[in-house]
Amino acid sequence: MAEIQVIPVASLPAIQPGDRLGCLIARSAVSLLPGDVVVIAQKVVSKAENRLVRLDSISPCSYAVEVGRFMGRDARLAEIILRETKRIVKMDRGILIAETRHGLVCANAGVDLSNVDGGTTASLLPLDPDASAFRISAELAESVGWMPPVIITDTFGRPWREGLVEVAIGLFGVKALRDYRGREDPQGLKLAATVIADVDQLASAAGLVFRKDSGIPACLIRGYEPAGEAGSARDLIRPPERDLFR
Amino acid sequence: MAEIQVIPVASLPAIQPGDRLGCLIARSAVSLLPGDVVVIAQKVVSKAENRLVRLDSISPCSYAVEVGRFMGRDARLAEIILRETKRIVKMDRGILIAETRHGLVCANAGVDLSNVDGGTTASLLPLDPDASAFRISAELAESVGWMPPVIITDTFGRPWREGLVEVAIGLFGVKALRDYRGREDPQGLKLAATVIADVDQLASAAGLVFRKDSGIPACLIRGYEPAGEAGSARDLIRPPERDLFR
Repeated sequence: MAEIQVIPVASLPAIQPGDRLGCLIARSAVSLLPGDVVVIAQKVVSKAENRLVRLDSISPCSYAVEVGRFMGRDARLAEIILRETKRIVKMDRGILIAETRHGLVCANAGVDLSNVDGGTTASLLPLDPDASAFRISAELAESVGWMPPVIITDTFGRPWREGLVEVAIGLFGVKALRDYRGREDPQGLKLAATVIADVDQLASAAGLVFRKDSGIPACLIRGYEPAGEAGSARDLIRPPERDLFR
Repeated sequence: MAEIQVIPVASLPAIQPGDRLGCLIARSAVSLLPGDVVVIAQKVVSKAENRLVRLDSISPCSYAVEVGRFMGRDARLAEIILRETKRIVKMDRGILIAETRHGLVCANAGVDLSNVDGGTTASLLPLDPDASAFRISAELAESVGWMPPVIITDTFGRPWREGLVEVAIGLFGVKALRDYRGREDPQGLKLAATVIADVDQLASAAGLVFRKDSGIPACLIRGYEPAGEAGSARDLIRPPERDLFR
Protein backbone atom coordinates (compact mmCIF):
# COMPACT_ATOMS: atom_id res chain seq x y z
CA MET A 1 0.00 0.00 0.00
CA ALA A 2 1.47 3.33 -1.11
CA GLU A 3 1.34 6.57 0.82
CA ILE A 4 -1.39 9.16 0.37
CA GLN A 5 -0.60 12.84 -0.15
CA VAL A 6 -2.92 15.76 0.57
CA ILE A 7 -1.71 18.66 -1.56
CA PRO A 8 -3.27 22.09 -0.91
CA VAL A 9 -4.28 24.24 -3.88
CA ALA A 10 -2.89 27.41 -2.40
CA SER A 11 -2.97 29.98 -5.17
CA LEU A 12 -6.68 30.36 -5.95
CA PRO A 13 -8.04 33.90 -6.26
CA ALA A 14 -11.08 35.00 -4.19
CA ILE A 15 -14.02 33.24 -5.87
CA GLN A 16 -16.81 35.32 -7.46
CA PRO A 17 -20.23 34.30 -8.82
CA GLY A 18 -19.77 32.92 -12.33
CA ASP A 19 -16.19 31.78 -11.79
CA ARG A 20 -15.34 28.42 -13.35
CA LEU A 21 -13.69 26.67 -10.41
CA GLY A 22 -12.30 23.78 -12.44
CA CYS A 23 -10.49 26.20 -14.77
CA LEU A 24 -9.09 28.18 -11.82
CA ILE A 25 -7.80 24.99 -10.17
CA ALA A 26 -6.28 23.82 -13.48
CA ARG A 27 -4.47 27.16 -13.73
CA SER A 28 -3.23 27.05 -10.12
CA ALA A 29 0.23 26.16 -8.90
CA VAL A 30 -0.47 22.43 -8.49
CA SER A 31 -0.26 19.86 -11.29
CA LEU A 32 -3.02 17.28 -11.50
CA LEU A 33 -1.88 13.69 -12.17
CA PRO A 34 -4.07 10.78 -13.28
CA GLY A 35 -5.67 9.20 -10.18
CA ASP A 36 -5.65 12.42 -8.16
CA VAL A 37 -8.91 13.23 -6.38
CA VAL A 38 -9.83 16.94 -6.33
CA VAL A 39 -11.51 18.04 -3.09
CA ILE A 40 -13.24 21.43 -2.87
CA ALA A 41 -14.95 23.14 0.05
CA GLN A 42 -18.64 23.93 -0.43
CA LYS A 43 -18.21 27.63 0.32
CA VAL A 44 -16.30 28.41 -2.88
CA VAL A 45 -18.65 26.19 -4.93
CA SER A 46 -21.64 28.08 -3.53
CA LYS A 47 -19.96 31.40 -4.32
CA ALA A 48 -19.12 30.35 -7.89
CA GLU A 49 -22.74 29.19 -8.35
CA ASN A 50 -24.09 32.39 -6.79
CA ARG A 51 -25.87 30.47 -4.04
CA LEU A 52 -25.72 33.68 -2.03
CA VAL A 53 -28.54 35.63 -0.42
CA ARG A 54 -28.18 39.15 0.96
CA LEU A 55 -29.84 39.48 4.35
CA ASP A 56 -31.30 42.86 3.37
CA SER A 57 -33.27 41.18 0.56
CA ILE A 58 -35.23 39.05 3.08
CA SER A 59 -38.47 39.75 4.96
CA PRO A 60 -38.69 37.17 7.72
CA CYS A 61 -42.03 35.48 8.38
CA SER A 62 -43.30 35.44 11.96
CA TYR A 63 -41.99 31.93 12.57
CA ALA A 64 -38.53 32.99 11.36
CA VAL A 65 -38.64 35.82 13.92
CA GLU A 66 -39.37 33.17 16.56
CA VAL A 67 -36.55 30.90 15.32
CA GLY A 68 -34.13 33.82 15.11
CA ARG A 69 -34.91 34.63 18.75
CA PHE A 70 -34.43 30.94 19.70
CA MET A 71 -31.03 30.88 17.94
CA GLY A 72 -29.93 34.32 19.07
CA ARG A 73 -29.40 35.19 15.39
CA ASP A 74 -30.82 37.60 12.83
CA ALA A 75 -34.45 36.70 11.92
CA ARG A 76 -33.58 37.14 8.22
CA LEU A 77 -30.86 34.50 8.57
CA ALA A 78 -33.42 32.23 10.28
CA GLU A 79 -35.80 32.82 7.36
CA ILE A 80 -33.11 31.72 4.88
CA ILE A 81 -32.37 28.64 7.00
CA LEU A 82 -36.06 27.69 7.14
CA ARG A 83 -36.34 28.05 3.35
CA GLU A 84 -33.48 25.51 2.99
CA THR A 85 -35.02 23.13 5.54
CA LYS A 86 -37.13 20.11 4.60
CA ARG A 87 -37.46 18.79 8.18
CA ILE A 88 -36.29 20.02 11.57
CA VAL A 89 -34.49 17.08 13.21
CA LYS A 90 -33.72 18.81 16.52
CA MET A 91 -34.26 22.27 17.94
CA ASP A 92 -32.81 22.65 21.39
CA ARG A 93 -30.54 24.96 23.38
CA GLY A 94 -30.32 27.53 20.59
CA ILE A 95 -29.22 24.96 18.00
CA LEU A 96 -31.20 23.96 14.93
CA ILE A 97 -30.34 20.64 13.27
CA ALA A 98 -32.15 20.40 9.95
CA GLU A 99 -32.54 17.98 7.08
CA THR A 100 -31.92 19.78 3.81
CA ARG A 101 -33.65 19.09 0.51
CA HIS A 102 -30.64 16.88 -0.36
CA GLY A 103 -31.30 14.71 2.70
CA LEU A 104 -28.22 16.04 4.52
CA VAL A 105 -28.63 16.51 8.28
CA CYS A 106 -26.61 19.42 9.63
CA ALA A 107 -26.75 22.62 11.66
CA ASN A 108 -28.71 25.49 10.08
CA ALA A 109 -29.43 23.50 6.88
CA GLY A 110 -25.92 24.37 5.67
CA VAL A 111 -26.62 28.13 5.64
CA ASP A 112 -23.68 30.18 6.84
CA LEU A 113 -22.42 33.77 6.97
CA SER A 114 -18.69 33.09 7.35
CA ASN A 115 -16.15 33.56 4.58
CA VAL A 116 -18.58 35.49 2.35
CA ASP A 117 -18.62 39.27 2.80
CA GLY A 118 -18.29 39.94 6.50
CA GLY A 119 -21.78 39.04 7.65
CA THR A 120 -24.37 40.65 5.35
CA THR A 121 -24.68 37.76 2.86
CA ALA A 122 -25.52 34.09 3.58
CA SER A 123 -24.20 31.20 1.54
CA LEU A 124 -26.48 28.25 0.77
CA LEU A 125 -25.46 24.71 -0.16
CA PRO A 126 -25.25 24.00 -3.91
CA LEU A 127 -28.64 22.93 -5.32
CA ASP A 128 -27.24 19.64 -6.67
CA PRO A 129 -23.75 19.01 -5.26
CA ASP A 130 -23.14 15.90 -7.44
CA ALA A 131 -23.88 18.03 -10.51
CA SER A 132 -21.50 20.72 -9.21
CA ALA A 133 -18.77 18.09 -8.86
CA PHE A 134 -19.46 16.84 -12.38
CA ARG A 135 -19.26 20.35 -13.82
CA ILE A 136 -16.00 21.15 -12.04
CA SER A 137 -14.54 17.87 -13.33
CA ALA A 138 -15.62 18.79 -16.87
CA GLU A 139 -13.98 22.22 -16.49
CA LEU A 140 -10.77 20.53 -15.33
CA ALA A 141 -10.96 18.18 -18.33
CA GLU A 142 -10.66 21.16 -20.68
CA SER A 143 -7.11 21.62 -19.35
CA VAL A 144 -5.91 18.19 -18.32
CA GLY A 145 -7.65 16.07 -20.95
CA TRP A 146 -9.49 13.71 -18.59
CA MET A 147 -12.27 14.07 -16.03
CA PRO A 148 -10.73 13.74 -12.54
CA PRO A 149 -12.76 12.57 -9.53
CA VAL A 150 -14.15 15.55 -7.59
CA ILE A 151 -15.52 15.70 -4.03
CA ILE A 152 -17.37 18.72 -2.62
CA THR A 153 -17.24 18.94 1.17
CA ASP A 154 -18.88 20.79 4.01
CA THR A 155 -18.01 21.10 7.70
CA PHE A 156 -20.52 19.18 9.86
CA GLY A 157 -20.91 18.56 13.58
CA ARG A 158 -21.66 15.11 14.97
CA PRO A 159 -23.82 13.95 17.87
CA TRP A 160 -21.89 12.96 21.04
CA ARG A 161 -18.52 14.29 19.83
CA GLU A 162 -17.13 17.79 20.11
CA GLY A 163 -15.79 19.55 17.06
CA LEU A 164 -16.64 19.64 13.38
CA VAL A 165 -15.21 17.51 10.58
CA GLU A 166 -15.23 17.84 6.81
CA VAL A 167 -17.67 15.43 5.08
CA ALA A 168 -18.58 14.80 1.44
CA ILE A 169 -21.82 16.39 0.16
CA GLY A 170 -21.28 15.99 -3.59
CA LEU A 171 -19.10 13.83 -5.75
CA PHE A 172 -18.22 12.76 -9.23
CA GLY A 173 -15.99 9.92 -10.42
CA VAL A 174 -15.47 8.34 -7.00
CA LYS A 175 -17.36 5.74 -4.96
CA ALA A 176 -18.78 6.90 -1.62
CA LEU A 177 -18.54 3.62 0.34
CA ARG A 178 -15.96 0.82 0.50
CA ASP A 179 -17.91 -2.36 1.15
CA TYR A 180 -16.12 -5.20 2.92
CA ARG A 181 -19.29 -7.23 3.56
CA GLY A 182 -18.81 -10.85 2.57
CA ARG A 183 -15.03 -10.47 2.52
CA GLU A 184 -12.94 -12.17 5.18
CA ASP A 185 -10.51 -10.76 7.70
CA PRO A 186 -6.96 -12.23 7.78
CA GLN A 187 -8.21 -14.91 10.25
CA GLY A 188 -10.97 -16.06 7.88
CA LEU A 189 -13.91 -14.43 9.73
CA LYS A 190 -16.58 -12.96 7.42
CA LEU A 191 -16.80 -9.18 7.92
CA ALA A 192 -20.48 -8.72 8.71
CA ALA A 193 -21.19 -5.00 8.84
CA THR A 194 -18.09 -3.25 7.62
CA VAL A 195 -18.80 -0.51 5.10
CA ILE A 196 -16.34 2.37 5.23
CA ALA A 197 -17.32 5.91 4.18
CA ASP A 198 -14.22 6.44 2.08
CA VAL A 199 -15.28 9.80 0.64
CA ASP A 200 -15.97 11.17 4.12
CA GLN A 201 -12.46 10.08 5.11
CA LEU A 202 -11.09 11.77 1.96
CA ALA A 203 -13.09 14.89 2.93
CA SER A 204 -11.66 14.86 6.46
CA ALA A 205 -8.13 14.37 5.13
CA ALA A 206 -8.73 17.45 2.96
CA GLY A 207 -10.07 19.24 6.04
CA LEU A 208 -6.55 19.06 7.49
CA VAL A 209 -5.33 21.52 4.84
CA PHE A 210 -8.54 23.57 4.56
CA ARG A 211 -8.25 26.28 7.16
CA LYS A 212 -11.08 28.57 8.16
CA ASP A 213 -8.70 31.52 8.28
CA SER A 214 -6.16 30.75 5.56
CA GLY A 215 -8.27 30.73 2.40
CA ILE A 216 -7.29 27.26 1.15
CA PRO A 217 -10.56 25.84 -0.18
CA ALA A 218 -9.25 23.03 -2.41
CA CYS A 219 -6.68 20.25 -2.47
CA LEU A 220 -5.60 17.18 -4.40
CA ILE A 221 -5.42 13.76 -2.80
CA ARG A 222 -2.80 11.59 -4.47
CA GLY A 223 -2.31 7.85 -3.97
CA TYR A 224 -5.90 6.97 -3.05
CA GLU A 225 -7.01 3.59 -4.34
CA PRO A 226 -10.64 3.76 -5.59
CA ALA A 227 -13.24 1.75 -3.64
CA GLY A 228 -15.05 0.65 -6.81
CA GLU A 229 -17.34 2.03 -9.49
CA ALA A 230 -18.11 5.73 -9.11
CA GLY A 231 -21.35 6.68 -7.37
CA SER A 232 -23.25 9.56 -5.79
CA ALA A 233 -23.10 11.44 -2.50
CA ARG A 234 -26.70 10.24 -2.05
CA ASP A 235 -25.15 6.85 -1.20
CA LEU A 236 -24.01 8.45 2.09
CA ILE A 237 -27.52 9.41 3.18
CA ARG A 238 -29.04 6.82 5.50
CA PRO A 239 -32.57 5.96 4.40
CA PRO A 240 -35.32 6.63 7.00
CA GLU A 241 -35.94 2.91 7.56
CA ARG A 242 -32.32 2.42 8.67
CA ASP A 243 -32.08 5.68 10.64
CA LEU A 244 -32.18 5.14 14.43
CA PHE A 245 -31.89 8.87 15.16
CA ARG A 246 -34.65 10.26 12.99
CA MET B 1 0.64 25.52 3.72
CA ALA B 2 2.64 22.38 3.00
CA GLU B 3 1.26 19.06 1.90
CA ILE B 4 0.33 16.29 4.31
CA GLN B 5 1.51 12.71 3.79
CA VAL B 6 -0.15 9.58 5.18
CA ILE B 7 2.51 6.88 5.25
CA PRO B 8 1.39 3.31 6.01
CA VAL B 9 3.46 1.22 8.42
CA ALA B 10 3.25 -1.90 6.30
CA SER B 11 5.69 -4.36 7.82
CA LEU B 12 4.32 -4.97 11.31
CA PRO B 13 4.09 -8.61 12.47
CA ALA B 14 0.79 -10.02 13.78
CA ILE B 15 0.42 -8.45 17.23
CA GLN B 16 0.34 -10.68 20.34
CA PRO B 17 -0.52 -9.85 23.97
CA GLY B 18 2.53 -8.30 25.62
CA ASP B 19 3.98 -6.90 22.39
CA ARG B 20 5.47 -3.43 22.72
CA LEU B 21 3.81 -1.67 19.79
CA GLY B 22 6.03 1.40 19.87
CA CYS B 23 9.15 -0.77 19.58
CA LEU B 24 7.65 -2.74 16.68
CA ILE B 25 6.76 0.47 14.83
CA ALA B 26 10.24 1.90 15.48
CA ARG B 27 11.74 -1.28 13.99
CA SER B 28 9.41 -1.22 10.93
CA ALA B 29 10.27 -0.09 7.43
CA VAL B 30 9.23 3.54 7.95
CA SER B 31 11.46 6.22 9.46
CA LEU B 32 9.89 8.58 11.95
CA LEU B 33 10.79 12.28 11.55
CA PRO B 34 10.25 15.07 14.11
CA GLY B 35 6.67 16.36 13.75
CA ASP B 36 5.26 13.06 12.46
CA VAL B 37 2.05 11.92 14.14
CA VAL B 38 1.80 8.14 14.71
CA VAL B 39 -1.73 6.78 14.23
CA ILE B 40 -2.60 3.25 15.39
CA ALA B 41 -5.84 1.29 15.09
CA GLN B 42 -7.43 0.22 18.39
CA LYS B 43 -7.49 -3.46 17.46
CA VAL B 44 -3.73 -3.94 17.65
CA VAL B 45 -3.51 -1.83 20.81
CA SER B 46 -6.18 -4.01 22.44
CA LYS B 47 -4.32 -7.16 21.35
CA ALA B 48 -0.99 -5.89 22.69
CA GLU B 49 -2.72 -4.99 25.99
CA ASN B 50 -4.50 -8.36 26.11
CA ARG B 51 -7.92 -6.71 26.12
CA LEU B 52 -9.25 -9.99 24.74
CA VAL B 53 -11.98 -12.24 26.11
CA ARG B 54 -12.64 -15.77 24.88
CA LEU B 55 -16.35 -16.36 24.34
CA ASP B 56 -16.08 -19.81 25.96
CA SER B 57 -14.96 -18.17 29.22
CA ILE B 58 -18.31 -16.33 29.52
CA SER B 59 -21.61 -17.37 31.13
CA PRO B 60 -24.24 -14.93 29.88
CA CYS B 61 -26.78 -13.55 32.33
CA SER B 62 -30.44 -13.77 31.40
CA TYR B 63 -30.52 -10.19 30.08
CA ALA B 64 -27.49 -10.92 27.86
CA VAL B 65 -29.45 -13.86 26.42
CA GLU B 66 -32.26 -11.40 25.64
CA VAL B 67 -29.85 -8.85 24.10
CA GLY B 68 -28.10 -11.57 22.08
CA ARG B 69 -31.48 -12.59 20.66
CA PHE B 70 -32.28 -8.93 19.88
CA MET B 71 -28.94 -8.52 18.06
CA GLY B 72 -28.98 -11.91 16.37
CA ARG B 73 -25.57 -12.55 17.97
CA ASP B 74 -24.07 -14.96 20.48
CA ALA B 75 -25.38 -14.32 24.02
CA ARG B 76 -21.82 -14.53 25.35
CA LEU B 77 -20.79 -11.69 23.02
CA ALA B 78 -23.82 -9.71 24.27
CA GLU B 79 -22.67 -10.35 27.85
CA ILE B 80 -19.22 -8.93 27.06
CA ILE B 81 -20.81 -5.90 25.38
CA LEU B 82 -23.05 -5.25 28.41
CA ARG B 83 -20.05 -5.46 30.73
CA GLU B 84 -18.36 -2.70 28.69
CA THR B 85 -21.52 -0.56 28.62
CA LYS B 86 -22.16 2.33 31.00
CA ARG B 87 -25.42 3.45 29.34
CA ILE B 88 -27.48 2.18 26.42
CA VAL B 89 -28.06 5.18 24.14
CA LYS B 90 -30.24 3.37 21.58
CA MET B 91 -31.44 -0.18 21.09
CA ASP B 92 -33.45 -0.60 17.94
CA ARG B 93 -33.63 -2.81 14.84
CA GLY B 94 -31.00 -5.24 16.12
CA ILE B 95 -28.46 -2.47 16.77
CA LEU B 96 -27.10 -1.50 20.18
CA ILE B 97 -25.51 1.95 20.54
CA ALA B 98 -23.79 2.19 23.90
CA GLU B 99 -21.84 4.68 25.92
CA THR B 100 -18.64 3.10 27.17
CA ARG B 101 -16.94 3.77 30.47
CA HIS B 102 -14.72 6.24 28.57
CA GLY B 103 -17.80 8.23 27.49
CA LEU B 104 -17.47 7.08 23.87
CA VAL B 105 -20.78 6.43 22.07
CA CYS B 106 -20.54 3.61 19.53
CA ALA B 107 -22.04 0.33 18.37
CA ASN B 108 -21.58 -2.61 20.76
CA ALA B 109 -19.50 -0.55 23.22
CA GLY B 110 -16.49 -1.08 20.97
CA VAL B 111 -16.53 -4.88 21.42
CA ASP B 112 -15.72 -6.72 18.21
CA LEU B 113 -14.85 -10.21 16.96
CA SER B 114 -13.15 -9.24 13.68
CA ASN B 115 -9.39 -9.39 13.12
CA VAL B 116 -8.73 -11.41 16.29
CA ASP B 117 -8.85 -15.18 15.92
CA GLY B 118 -11.65 -15.99 13.55
CA GLY B 119 -14.65 -15.43 15.84
CA THR B 120 -14.03 -17.15 19.19
CA THR B 121 -12.39 -14.18 20.98
CA ALA B 122 -13.73 -10.64 21.41
CA SER B 123 -11.54 -7.56 21.59
CA LEU B 124 -12.42 -4.77 24.01
CA LEU B 125 -11.38 -1.12 23.84
CA PRO B 126 -8.21 -0.22 25.80
CA LEU B 127 -9.02 0.62 29.43
CA ASP B 128 -7.38 4.07 29.17
CA PRO B 129 -6.66 4.92 25.51
CA ASP B 130 -4.77 8.16 26.36
CA ALA B 131 -2.48 6.11 28.61
CA SER B 132 -2.01 3.57 25.79
CA ALA B 133 -1.00 6.40 23.45
CA PHE B 134 1.43 7.74 26.06
CA ARG B 135 3.02 4.32 26.55
CA ILE B 136 3.43 3.71 22.81
CA SER B 137 5.03 7.16 22.49
CA ALA B 138 7.44 6.31 25.32
CA GLU B 139 8.32 3.01 23.60
CA LEU B 140 9.00 4.89 20.38
CA ALA B 141 11.17 7.35 22.31
CA GLU B 142 13.54 4.51 23.24
CA SER B 143 14.46 4.27 19.55
CA VAL B 144 14.00 7.75 18.13
CA GLY B 145 15.02 9.84 21.14
CA TRP B 146 11.85 11.93 21.42
CA MET B 147 8.20 11.23 22.27
CA PRO B 148 6.17 11.54 19.07
CA PRO B 149 2.46 12.41 19.10
CA VAL B 150 0.32 9.23 19.03
CA ILE B 151 -3.37 8.82 18.17
CA ILE B 152 -5.33 5.60 18.79
CA THR B 153 -8.36 5.22 16.54
CA ASP B 154 -11.48 3.12 16.22
CA THR B 155 -14.02 2.74 13.42
CA PHE B 156 -17.36 4.34 14.36
CA GLY B 157 -20.71 4.77 12.63
CA ARG B 158 -22.54 8.09 12.61
CA PRO B 159 -26.25 8.94 12.82
CA TRP B 160 -27.86 9.95 9.51
CA ARG B 161 -24.88 8.96 7.34
CA GLU B 162 -24.05 5.56 5.88
CA GLY B 163 -20.64 4.05 6.40
CA LEU B 164 -18.08 4.06 9.16
CA VAL B 165 -15.14 6.40 9.64
CA GLU B 166 -12.02 6.25 11.77
CA VAL B 167 -12.13 8.51 14.85
CA ALA B 168 -9.68 9.23 17.67
CA ILE B 169 -10.29 7.44 20.99
CA GLY B 170 -6.92 8.04 22.66
CA LEU B 171 -4.10 10.47 22.17
CA PHE B 172 -0.81 11.76 23.44
CA GLY B 173 1.18 14.81 22.38
CA VAL B 174 -1.47 16.29 20.10
CA LYS B 175 -4.43 18.63 20.63
CA ALA B 176 -7.90 17.22 19.89
CA LEU B 177 -9.63 20.41 18.73
CA ARG B 178 -8.55 23.40 16.64
CA ASP B 179 -10.43 26.38 18.02
CA TYR B 180 -11.15 29.28 15.67
CA ARG B 181 -13.60 31.01 18.02
CA GLY B 182 -12.79 34.68 18.34
CA ARG B 183 -10.61 34.62 15.23
CA GLU B 184 -11.77 36.37 12.08
CA ASP B 185 -12.42 35.05 8.58
CA PRO B 186 -10.61 36.82 5.69
CA GLN B 187 -13.57 39.26 5.45
CA GLY B 188 -13.22 40.27 9.10
CA LEU B 189 -16.26 38.35 10.43
CA LYS B 190 -15.74 36.78 13.87
CA LEU B 191 -15.97 32.98 13.61
CA ALA B 192 -18.63 32.19 16.19
CA ALA B 193 -18.82 28.42 16.55
CA THR B 194 -15.96 26.97 14.58
CA VAL B 195 -14.06 24.31 16.46
CA ILE B 196 -12.56 21.63 14.22
CA ALA B 197 -11.96 18.08 15.48
CA ASP B 198 -8.45 17.90 14.06
CA VAL B 199 -7.58 14.53 15.60
CA ASP B 200 -10.73 12.94 14.17
CA GLN B 201 -9.68 14.27 10.76
CA LEU B 202 -6.19 12.84 11.32
CA ALA B 203 -7.84 9.52 12.28
CA SER B 204 -9.97 9.52 9.12
CA ALA B 205 -6.94 10.35 6.97
CA ALA B 206 -5.23 7.34 8.56
CA GLY B 207 -8.38 5.30 7.85
CA LEU B 208 -7.64 5.71 4.14
CA VAL B 209 -4.56 3.47 4.52
CA PHE B 210 -5.94 1.19 7.26
CA ARG B 211 -7.72 -1.59 5.46
CA LYS B 212 -9.93 -4.16 7.14
CA ASP B 213 -8.47 -6.92 4.98
CA SER B 214 -4.86 -5.81 4.42
CA GLY B 215 -3.41 -5.82 7.91
CA ILE B 216 -2.13 -2.24 7.96
CA PRO B 217 -2.97 -1.03 11.47
CA ALA B 218 -0.63 1.96 11.76
CA CYS B 219 0.63 4.94 9.79
CA LEU B 220 2.57 8.16 10.11
CA ILE B 221 1.08 11.52 9.22
CA ARG B 222 3.74 13.97 8.10
CA GLY B 223 3.30 17.71 7.55
CA TYR B 224 0.47 18.26 10.04
CA GLU B 225 0.64 21.59 11.83
CA PRO B 226 -0.33 21.17 15.53
CA ALA B 227 -3.55 22.86 16.67
CA GLY B 228 -2.05 23.96 19.99
CA GLU B 229 -0.99 22.54 23.33
CA ALA B 230 -1.42 18.76 23.60
CA GLY B 231 -4.60 17.46 25.25
CA SER B 232 -6.72 14.38 25.81
CA ALA B 233 -9.20 12.37 23.76
CA ARG B 234 -11.66 13.25 26.54
CA ASP B 235 -11.79 16.72 24.94
CA LEU B 236 -13.75 15.09 22.08
CA ILE B 237 -16.52 13.79 24.33
CA ARG B 238 -19.48 16.15 24.40
CA PRO B 239 -20.60 16.76 27.97
CA PRO B 240 -24.23 15.76 28.75
CA GLU B 241 -25.34 19.39 29.12
CA ARG B 242 -24.29 20.13 25.52
CA ASP B 243 -25.52 16.81 24.07
CA LEU B 244 -28.75 17.19 22.05
CA PHE B 245 -28.91 13.47 21.25
CA ARG B 246 -28.53 11.94 24.68
